[in-house]
Amino acid sequence: MAELTPRGPFVTVEGLDFSGKSTLVSLLKDALAGLDPPVYFTREPGGTGVAEHVRALLLDPELEMGPWTEAYLYAAARAELVDREILPRLEGGETVVCERFLDSSLAYQGYGRSLGVSEVRDLNSWAVGMVVPDRTFYLRLSPEERARRALESDAPLDRIERVGDEFMRRVEVGFEEISRAEPERVRVLDASLPPGELAQAVRREIMGLRAP
Amino acid sequence: MAELTPRGPFVTVEGLDFSGKSTLVSLLKDALAGLDPPVYFTREPGGTGVAEHVRALLLDPELEMGPWTEAYLYAAARAELVDREILPRLEGGETVVCERFLDSSLAYQGYGRSLGVSEVRDLNSWAVGMVVPDRTFYLRLSPEERARRALESDAPLDRIERVGDEFMRRVEVGFEEISRAEPERVRVLDASLPPGELAQAVRREIMGLRAP
Repeated sequence: MAELTPRGPFVTVEGLDFSGKSTLVSLLKDALAGLDPPVYFTREPGGTGVAEHVRALLLDPELEMGPWTEAYLYAAARAELVDREILPRLEGGETVVCERFLDSSLAYQGYGRSLGVSEVRDLNSWAVGMVVPDRTFYLRLSPEERARRALESDAPLDRIERVGDEFMRRVEVGFEEISRAEPERVRVLDASLPPGELAQAVRREIMGLRAP
Repeated sequence: MAELTPRGPFVTVEGLDFSGKSTLVSLLKDALAGLDPPVYFTREPGGTGVAEHVRALLLDPELEMGPWTEAYLYAAARAELVDREILPRLEGGETVVCERFLDSSLAYQGYGRSLGVSEVRDLNSWAVGMVVPDRTFYLRLSPEERARRALESDAPLDRIERVGDEFMRRVEVGFEEISRAEPERVRVLDASLPPGELAQAVRREIMGLRAP
């Protein structure tokens, strides 16, 4: 009988803009390099050809779009990423770390745009299929601290980052409620801690999720 | 009491590629010009800024994408068109004629891509809301006749038009089943009739749908 490759763990990193997701992921790339089976890093929206095109539309500050259009575009990018990258790699035994995933849609479109969390979950059901994160690291950052970091940043704001403070407070409420509802899956991290410290803690937990 | 504007009729034109939808719509534009309230013509995918960007992705023969991604992108474009153009105009009493609408997604993605007609209908529910065509004109064209017309055409084929014959036969089955299921809404037209004759029949029916 052929031996079945055990499915690899699926890990997501979530949080408001400026919460340090990219910094954390970049440190993890170094800390988890060279393992076998490997750790694959990707991000949303994007990660594949057509999804990167969709990302460009979603973040273009010149484009206006309705909230459902936005939700569908995120789902389109997600369907592509799950189908082409995430699922095949998990089934091949790799560990996958994805910066943003379904929780971001629930928080930003479900709560932030007020579309409703169950509606956005239903809308995404064909995109994610049975792919659920085994562990999610939520970088908790208050909207006030987020605003301070945004002011300090030199980078021009994208379409989503430009939306106002009320929106960001709803997004934060979304992430907090998701974390409370699924404490087994979601680890809440203090985004104000030193990045190296956060990366060490996350690295340990990811190593624990991998098959021995 | 303020007088409520009666909602205008919503008319869609459906059929396989090369069935003559654009020719019919172009003749209708002339035949229905200058009316009050006006008749507004649009098409899917596209019709608004971001939806035209999505159209470009959907039809780009260089881009590969999975079937659910495709379904989400059509829904994204549809949500935008309904929200920005179709619904406001109908509520303002205008007649709207749209080349392709939900039935195309049911036929192409539900039947053609085999995603399932009820799944594709559910996926689109947030895009269309309560906007249902009052009348749909389905230009019936056999896949064989479609293939003949495609061969005669000089225009390069887009991403959808390049898919094979088996796919087009499933799409045809989809349009036929939709027509049978909703005979009150869907008028089946013989796409091999002279375009002027078809336009006259459709024009008469649209005039009958408009409030006197």
